[in-house]
Amino acid sequence: MLSQNQIKHISSLKSKKFREEHRHFITEGHKLVVDLIDSPYQIIGIYAFSSWIIENLSLVQKKHIPLFETLPREMERISALSTPSQVLAVVEIPTPTPFPYPDWQGSSRDKLYLALDDIKDPGNLGSIIRIADWFGIEEIFCSETCVDLYNPKVVQATMGSIARVRVQYAVLEKILGEVTGKIPVYGTFLDGENLYEQDLSGGGIILIGNESRGISSALVQSVSRRLFIPSFGKSEYGKAESLNASVATAIICAEFRRQSG
Amino acid sequence: MLSQNQIKHISSLKSKKFREEHRHFITEGHKLVVDLIDSPYQIIGIYAFSSWIIENLSLVQKKHIPLFETLPREMERISALSTPSQVLAVVEIPTPTPFPYPDWQGSSRDKLYLALDDIKDPGNLGSIIRIADWFGIEEIFCSETCVDLYNPKVVQATMGSIARVRVQYAVLEKILGEVTGKIPVYGTFLDGENLYEQDLSGGGIILIGNESRGISSALVQSVSRRLFIPSFGKSEYGKAESLNASVATAIICAEFRRQSG
Repeated sequence: MLSQNQIKHISSLKSKKFREEHRHFITEGHKLVVDLIDSPYQIIGIYAFSSWIIENLSLVQKKHIPLFETLPREMERISALSTPSQVLAVVEIPTPTPFPYPDWQGSSRDKLYLALDDIKDPGNLGSIIRIADWFGIEEIFCSETCVDLYNPKVVQATMGSIARVRVQYAVLEKILGEVTGKIPVYGTFLDGENLYEQDLSGGGIILIGNESRGISSALVQSVSRRLFIPSFGKSEYGKAESLNASVATAIICAEFRRQSG
Repeated sequence: MLSQNQIKHISSLKSKKFREEHRHFITEGHKLVVDLIDSPYQIIGIYAFSSWIIENLSLVQKKHIPLFETLPREMERISALSTPSQVLAVVEIPTPTPFPYPDWQGSSRDKLYLALDDIKDPGNLGSIIRIADWFGIEEIFCSETCVDLYNPKVVQATMGSIARVRVQYAVLEKILGEVTGKIPVYGTFLDGENLYEQDLSGGGIILIGNESRGISSALVQSVSRRLFIPSFGKSEYGKAESLNASVATAIICAEFRRQSG
């Protein structure tokens, strides 16, 4: 049985205001919780059905994580999912900027980074983090206008990749300004060069624009390599005008890895 | 001003039961409504703010579509969006199986098709339709367990591509059985061949599995070409185990088009 205060505290973490006040966020479902337990994130508490606790007790005890048996009707109140899972973890939000910016020299020049300009859809941000994890991209810079990383929908859409990819909010104008002339900044534009005819075997920053407006005008001048994902649409009724932001990210990252793999 | 019956009818179309009873679905937002007006779909009525009507009157009148001026508080009641748009269209659901199955001979052998096995997430189905439109894939077969094409979240996620890509529900076991030995059936598996080391310049059916369970066991034997999207994850804390279904679809379609383009 949870106390009313516990239920109230955990429920409040669906809102960004209370996440920032308490520096806690929630994650739900067996895979996500286990991925977070096995990561540098600090777990404040695990709320689970007795059946989950029986099967996972040794894992939780090994890490000395406080464990609270939770009834289905309590889970419904603390969960952010329409169909709650059998386990929910309350996790500490790390201190902002937990890692130094790359110096854009030496080995950091050979790496790929993502910079997200005003990504608003939680599913897109989560999906992009999962894509980065798949393709071995370790760091993502988000503009301060992007959706909150610890929004429950973002956390769930990462499918655990939030435990492995470092995401930090930053002023993109500043970062992209600093790297000018040091590493390439890639962006997609309708008048860009065919992605498949470019040498994309090196490192750099891939800049992804907002879902409806694309890359903001303040950042366009920072893009040194303008790309275009070729379309093959041919319906007599027109064709798709664009791809979803996370889908475009996936296609670009895949092509970088194809050329360098 | 709309009548109570109009409001009740349109609101009911958020539910599959009433969509099937009335054979109507809704689509919202300027781009989607205009894409549907310019398509073979039949528009039953357009519900819009006066400002939208003033700017788009000639387009609507040219097609003889009934037009209903709608107040913001009425739009809130008929819309399926959390932030309603200025225009909503009620559209006729075409008779099922509006096009014959390909004969898998001649030019239909050189085309690419998608077959979706139990795709449950509306955002994924909509996103896959948009990807198909971008890459010139004209026909998608959905298993009968896939989410309903006319679910408002699917329609919105297609961003208008529903107007250009033909989607039909079918028994996939039957279709994939029919094509055995005629055209290749591609599927992704963890033990498949590296996507980037395969000749993917011809036609065939790309089979996409369910979001959590992958391709169902009844369909696995129909796959003649087992593929794998190489991963480059390397965190000390593990790596992403999979990609989202629509993201995987995009990467595979892009590679087919890169090789044949």
